[in-house]
Amino acid sequence: MECTNHKPEETIMAHFSDAVQWRRDLHKHPQPAWLEFYATGFVAKKLAEWGYEVKLGQDIIDERKLLLLPSAGKLQTEYERALQDGIKEEYIAPAKGGFTGVIGILKGSQPGPTVGFRFDIDSNEVTEGASDSHRPAKEGFASQNPGYAHMCGHDAHIAMGLLLALHFGENRDKLKGTVKFIFQPNEENLSGASAMVEKGLVDDLDYLFGGHVGISGNEAGKISIDVHSILALSRFEITYTGRSTHAGVSPHEGKNALLGACAAITNLYAIARHGGGASRINVGTLEAGSTWNAIPDRAYFRMETRGANNTINGYMVQKSLEVLQGAAKMYDLDLEIKPAANAISGRSSPEMIALGMKVAEKLPSVKQVIPEVAFNGSEDVTVMMERVQSRGGKVLYVLFGSPIFGGHHSSTFDVDETVIRNGAEFLASMQAEVTSDTVTERL
Amino acid sequence: MECTNHKPEETIMAHFSDAVQWRRDLHKHPQPAWLEFYATGFVAKKLAEWGYEVKLGQDIIDERKLLLLPSAGKLQTEYERALQDGIKEEYIAPAKGGFTGVIGILKGSQPGPTVGFRFDIDSNEVTEGASDSHRPAKEGFASQNPGYAHMCGHDAHIAMGLLLALHFGENRDKLKGTVKFIFQPNEENLSGASAMVEKGLVDDLDYLFGGHVGISGNEAGKISIDVHSILALSRFEITYTGRSTHAGVSPHEGKNALLGACAAITNLYAIARHGGGASRINVGTLEAGSTWNAIPDRAYFRMETRGANNTINGYMVQKSLEVLQGAAKMYDLDLEIKPAANAISGRSSPEMIALGMKVAEKLPSVKQVIPEVAFNGSEDVTVMMERVQSRGGKVLYVLFGSPIFGGHHSSTFDVDETVIRNGAEFLASMQAEVTSDTVTERL
Amino acid sequence: MECTNHKPEETIMAHFSDAVQWRRDLHKHPQPAWLEFYATGFVAKKLAEWGYEVKLGQDIIDERKLLLLPSAGKLQTEYERALQDGIKEEYIAPAKGGFTGVIGILKGSQPGPTVGFRFDIDSNEVTEGASDSHRPAKEGFASQNPGYAHMCGHDAHIAMGLLLALHFGENRDKLKGTVKFIFQPNEENLSGASAMVEKGLVDDLDYLFGGHVGISGNEAGKISIDVHSILALSRFEITYTGRSTHAGVSPHEGKNALLGACAAITNLYAIARHGGGASRINVGTLEAGSTWNAIPDRAYFRMETRGANNTINGYMVQKSLEVLQGAAKMYDLDLEIKPAANAISGRSSPEMIALGMKVAEKLPSVKQVIPEVAFNGSEDVTVMMERVQSRGGKVLYVLFGSPIFGGHHSSTFDVDETVIRNGAEFLASMQAEVTSDTVTERL
Amino acid sequence: MECTNHKPEETIMAHFSDAVQWRRDLHKHPQPAWLEFYATGFVAKKLAEWGYEVKLGQDIIDERKLLLLPSAGKLQTEYERALQDGIKEEYIAPAKGGFTGVIGILKGSQPGPTVGFRFDIDSNEVTEGASDSHRPAKEGFASQNPGYAHMCGHDAHIAMGLLLALHFGENRDKLKGTVKFIFQPNEENLSGASAMVEKGLVDDLDYLFGGHVGISGNEAGKISIDVHSILALSRFEITYTGRSTHAGVSPHEGKNALLGACAAITNLYAIARHGGGASRINVGTLEAGSTWNAIPDRAYFRMETRGANNTINGYMVQKSLEVLQGAAKMYDLDLEIKPAANAISGRSSPEMIALGMKVAEKLPSVKQVIPEVAFNGSEDVTVMMERVQSRGGKVLYVLFGSPIFGGHHSSTFDVDETVIRNGAEFLASMQAEVTSDTVTERL
Repeated sequence: MECTNHKPEETIMAHFSDAVQWRRDLHKHPQPAWLEFYATGFVAKKLAEWGYEVKLGQDIIDERKLLLLPSAGKLQTEYERALQDGIKEEYIAPAKGGFTGVIGILKGSQPGPTVGFRFDIDSNEVTEGASDSHRPAKEGFASQNPGYAHMCGHDAHIAMGLLLALHFGENRDKLKGTVKFIFQPNEENLSGASAMVEKGLVDDLDYLFGGHVGISGNEAGKISIDVHSILALSRFEITYTGRSTHAGVSPHEGKNALLGACAAITNLYAIARHGGGASRINVGTLEAGSTWNAIPDRAYFRMETRGANNTINGYMVQKSLEVLQGAAKMYDLDLEIKPAANAISGRSSPEMIALGMKVAEKLPSVKQVIPEVAFNGSEDVTVMMERVQSRGGKVLYVLFGSPIFGGHHSSTFDVDETVIRNGAEFLASMQAEVTSDTVTERL
Repeated sequence: MECTNHKPEETIMAHFSDAVQWRRDLHKHPQPAWLEFYATGFVAKKLAEWGYEVKLGQDIIDERKLLLLPSAGKLQTEYERALQDGIKEEYIAPAKGGFTGVIGILKGSQPGPTVGFRFDIDSNEVTEGASDSHRPAKEGFASQNPGYAHMCGHDAHIAMGLLLALHFGENRDKLKGTVKFIFQPNEENLSGASAMVEKGLVDDLDYLFGGHVGISGNEAGKISIDVHSILALSRFEITYTGRSTHAGVSPHEGKNALLGACAAITNLYAIARHGGGASRINVGTLEAGSTWNAIPDRAYFRMETRGANNTINGYMVQKSLEVLQGAAKMYDLDLEIKPAANAISGRSSPEMIALGMKVAEKLPSVKQVIPEVAFNGSEDVTVMMERVQSRGGKVLYVLFGSPIFGGHHSSTFDVDETVIRNGAEFLASMQAEVTSDTVTERL
Repeated sequence: MECTNHKPEETIMAHFSDAVQWRRDLHKHPQPAWLEFYATGFVAKKLAEWGYEVKLGQDIIDERKLLLLPSAGKLQTEYERALQDGIKEEYIAPAKGGFTGVIGILKGSQPGPTVGFRFDIDSNEVTEGASDSHRPAKEGFASQNPGYAHMCGHDAHIAMGLLLALHFGENRDKLKGTVKFIFQPNEENLSGASAMVEKGLVDDLDYLFGGHVGISGNEAGKISIDVHSILALSRFEITYTGRSTHAGVSPHEGKNALLGACAAITNLYAIARHGGGASRINVGTLEAGSTWNAIPDRAYFRMETRGANNTINGYMVQKSLEVLQGAAKMYDLDLEIKPAANAISGRSSPEMIALGMKVAEKLPSVKQVIPEVAFNGSEDVTVMMERVQSRGGKVLYVLFGSPIFGGHHSSTFDVDETVIRNGAEFLASMQAEVTSDTVTERL
Repeated sequence: MECTNHKPEETIMAHFSDAVQWRRDLHKHPQPAWLEFYATGFVAKKLAEWGYEVKLGQDIIDERKLLLLPSAGKLQTEYERALQDGIKEEYIAPAKGGFTGVIGILKGSQPGPTVGFRFDIDSNEVTEGASDSHRPAKEGFASQNPGYAHMCGHDAHIAMGLLLALHFGENRDKLKGTVKFIFQPNEENLSGASAMVEKGLVDDLDYLFGGHVGISGNEAGKISIDVHSILALSRFEITYTGRSTHAGVSPHEGKNALLGACAAITNLYAIARHGGGASRINVGTLEAGSTWNAIPDRAYFRMETRGANNTINGYMVQKSLEVLQGAAKMYDLDLEIKPAANAISGRSSPEMIALGMKVAEKLPSVKQVIPEVAFNGSEDVTVMMERVQSRGGKVLYVLFGSPIFGGHHSSTFDVDETVIRNGAEFLASMQAEVTSDTVTERL
């Protein structure tokens, strides 16, 4: 497979400093899963101004997939905060109630395939660090929203996406095919991708590109093209309900939800390891009972399973259900199992990995192409990848090099902002490559 | 309530030394639950000689209640051993296959109520001590059957019963009403009483008397009339069956019966204490698995529950079933629950306690009447007591004082043989009392 | 044992309507354990006005026994609330920081023994019911403090104590010996008695009287003199601390505090039942972990043990410690065990039960004397009882009959207020009796 | 790396039919770990006759490593059985008590390196199938020893080793360096290798070769040169000892060994999965308690851990010890941990893999060289490999292709006997290669 030489894209270079300002503006206004009203309005307004067809709200988010939806009070508070911070209501009214995210579509002047780009937009639920050694704090663009901060680089993802979108917008006359920008809410809780896929939003894609900034120990200019070991993952909220009774007078009349939960948890961890590859189980939190002398009548916990592939995760889920139901039976408890997240395993299409390597090697901004990297975590972009691949499309998920200050999800996470430009350039080049006559034929 | 004066019964005194010889003969030939062929033949022959109507075999034992029946091989071996030890086949042929025990009925010359006496006949599965400080060893009547020994005094019970039966046989002309002797097999595994009750054998009783030799720290001549805290008890054999698989290569393909058993056992003990009184749970034995590197596909254990009353034991059984089924569900196992024993709680009829105290106080052989004793164990005579009481009959269960050498079920247990005579006297007096015109009216 | 006739005390009758108003005032201003500033100030002011020597603060509460002390913020809030509700600062300044409760001492004009009366003053942490069927709500004296309410009758206890104290105050010229009123904080969390006993406050008592209003199904005018089965109790706060790690990437680097807690809890409930009498165990609450994908590094739970007597509770505590330490060892966790409450078993002095029965039978206000009642709960008055008895004093703990509306600790609990008068009368009579020349000699 | 052409070795061809008879003779006389008296005598006699220096008994087996040594009775029985089956006492007298195995050393006429060959000699504890579809049964060489059978091909290993030894013996004049034959006992329980290594028996080796017959789905003529994923493994016998007591009367006086074992087992399986690769845990068997109504005072179980590498297995062992000790603490039990087996992970030396491939490709008997095979089980040859490699030697462990009839360890396992000749040829060629002047220099 050959590919054309790419030179630094002029529009991308020209607007890079704008993109840095966008990222910093977004960094100041972080909102977590299903509450990303500021980012939604910010992105929608720009895409509309640049000539994109913009889709919002229930057109792009399936209500049944609003897992772990925040309380009505929180939804209202964050919605109003976005308005107060300058977002125009017209851009976020459709998102009211948690239907956040934006789709932007631009048809080129020439025929060609439909190419999707996915960027995630939610912040973390972390209070940002305030010390001078943390650049956002020092330079005045730290989070204004206590308890929330972009500590995973999604602010840079949005800026990268907008920079790329602007590039296509300004070069629409040369654009082959259609570009579709997917600004996805709720990646952190691994539900946004499913909510969009259920609306059929990736069904028309011939190509899908996604990525993430930063690899531990990496630096700007590096890029990882072949990312494997994205673990399949499932999360559930579990509630056992029993019957309370006085622990001294009538313990036999109770149904002990905490004992049921303990039996479940111990035996969840004891699920047999899978001979076919890595499996994982965790119960991250547990709350039960209300007072000393009453048998606890309620126990609530959050659990997750993972697997090296979907089969293994499916095995862990199936065995978990058996354990959960068994513990309910043991203590005569009611059991509620509420899905909270779902991410499958996935891997880029081999042809796109090969093409990505060739493209990367010719980009001046790329200092080093790292061929193979184990992700060892979960990402719900896999849900989109699987849908596209199952319909005959090709996908590529890459890691854009940047030093990671502080570490992902820490309170002092930061990135080297040149990753915004580097990422946009690579993705622009990939779009050019897959729409060039030569390659399209061959793939 | 008044009662007549009782003097030492002449026939009982006259045959006491015979009764001691019977006890020693039986002591030499112990056989445990469902295997008491020697005792069955020994008793049946004597009762027949003394004019009793004798019932044996399937007429007196319900096949469905042959719980924990020994293997066919053991049944055959012990049957043959009884023959070799001098038992005539005619008396034990009906008992072949485990239908041991004897019923002896004698109708008096005068009208009157039917009075039952119950004696248990099985030995323990213990090898008897051989040291000179143990009288049976020193005097040459220790068990000839390795692994079996009368270490709970049932040999003395049989001798007491026979002495009493002989007394009635020799005084049939003065006997009012009917006496019915119930020589019950399998008290140790708590199934013989049920097997007889199911055959309707106590349905015709107006009175039922039972008892046990020895109370810890007691001496001959003492008697306990009001025995409470006989615990209700249930026993089960539990088998979990799963699927074996290689523990290194494919652990996920197994169904781990041992893990299921461990989950069950831990949570069985964790069943909430009952606010209404004493509850008990025990898993006495467990066997699981066959080799190092295979997931165990089978786990077998023996469990028992107890309760201060039938309600509490019923609660323990019900909760146990939930735990057992829950553990099966947890590990996707097949579960077999096989009843092994059942004893209910029970208490003597108040009128009989009162009468017994009066009778005892007037007996010269009684040195002290202990009014109230907590049994704190289980005895399946309760099954007979409950049936008699439910049909309007009266029952009394007493403890006949004797020093306990060695301790119940130890390898050096022994009794003071005068308890045989004392017990027979007391029971003869009780029979006389309840058939006397005065009392019969009043009760 | 004889006793003099008692007639309705005039001072008690005369002030009964005042006492009802006091009870309702206190009912409106409930505060729970260690926060009883309103009650402390209310009582202290009255006792001082009536000529009592009043002791407060660190003179009567041992700082080391301030178990489960509320946060500094709560302590300050409730202190200020008491001031706002009209309590004079001089009476509660010594109680600042949780040193609540009042001691009032009155020396009689004639020599005689020292007689103590103990009343508990804390409210429950319950929000009071607001329906018209609940008299405090209907008649306007319901709790003004959301989350707090007198739902165990301690408001009536205080009123009873004050009515009795006023009686002695007005009859000081006839008073023999000394009366000592102990208004104890924190009975609900079972720590107030210890905190006072450690200060030596009951060491000088020849007699101690205590009691509680209401017995299920009872009515005003009944009284229970012989209260048994007060369970010994111990409470602990348990914290396991481990090490958090990413559940997907490096589960083996974690130390799972939740798994440790689950192992502990399951096996705590599985501690063998005690053959000697009732034992209890409960884990009332559990909180662990912080997020889905991290191994929980902290688990906190509240547990309690009980026993029919101190030996059995001691057994439960000892076994619990072994289980807790074993689970820490299993998962390599740090373990913190913080005592939270301690109540022992106890029983009134036999002579006082006998005397109490005679006194009660002669009181016109007493309709029925119930001889024996099982308490089946815990009360820390036992700590005072044990101290007094161990030094040769006599004690009596009674239950004052009243219908229980709603049930103890429910949101609609209420009492028949005549119990206030009835209780004061009984206690006044008992004081008269034990200080009369005749009886004092004899006991 | 070059290698010389190899042609079918004449001596090996010439004696192949003898080797088949040896294999069948050994197949008829199987004995398991530490009991391989027949094989020891059979091998020792032949090696001695062929001019080898033979070492036996305590010179080659370290007594401290006689893990899981059978009972004295079994040792005696099997020793006598070997004598009865025709083994001369002089060859097995040194092995009495379990010191089985044989070392045979032959010095060549020319200088050169010392090359070791390891063959394992123990049978399985399985009763051989008797149906006509099973060739050993049909052709009359099935196991004569009920309960024991060569169901893993070690009989073929011995025959292969003897055929190779005879080849060198007959060609001693051309032999360069020294050949050392290690006929190792007890591979199945993974202790024989350690017992020999501790005696320094592989310390003088420049090269070590080992292998195993049969790969699932394979056929004679295939060979696997690069075997990876040999799991590190540790086995332990665990005994908890507590205190028995009557489950009804005094459960609180017991120390429940079964409950301790259940707590341990559940939490052993719950040990956190290792993020660095495969980990395994299994409890293969458990026996506890003796009767229904006694708290079990003893629980014995067999457990094993495995890891993809020694670090991961070490982690599993360390965590297991914590769990085991924690459970002992929980139930106040004595804990005995007895090592039963130890196999480390290991991999052939890269140079030898490369050389082996070249040699195999040139052998006429080799139909196909399979480059890479995951073993996914454990083999204690790794202990020898590690020792040789740590002292600078080179090692190679291969799988010799053969169809596997029945499956390893099944009762109908069998091999295609041509694997005996194929294996001997390959090993002879490797010995020739590593002693040839050219190669020796280069490795």
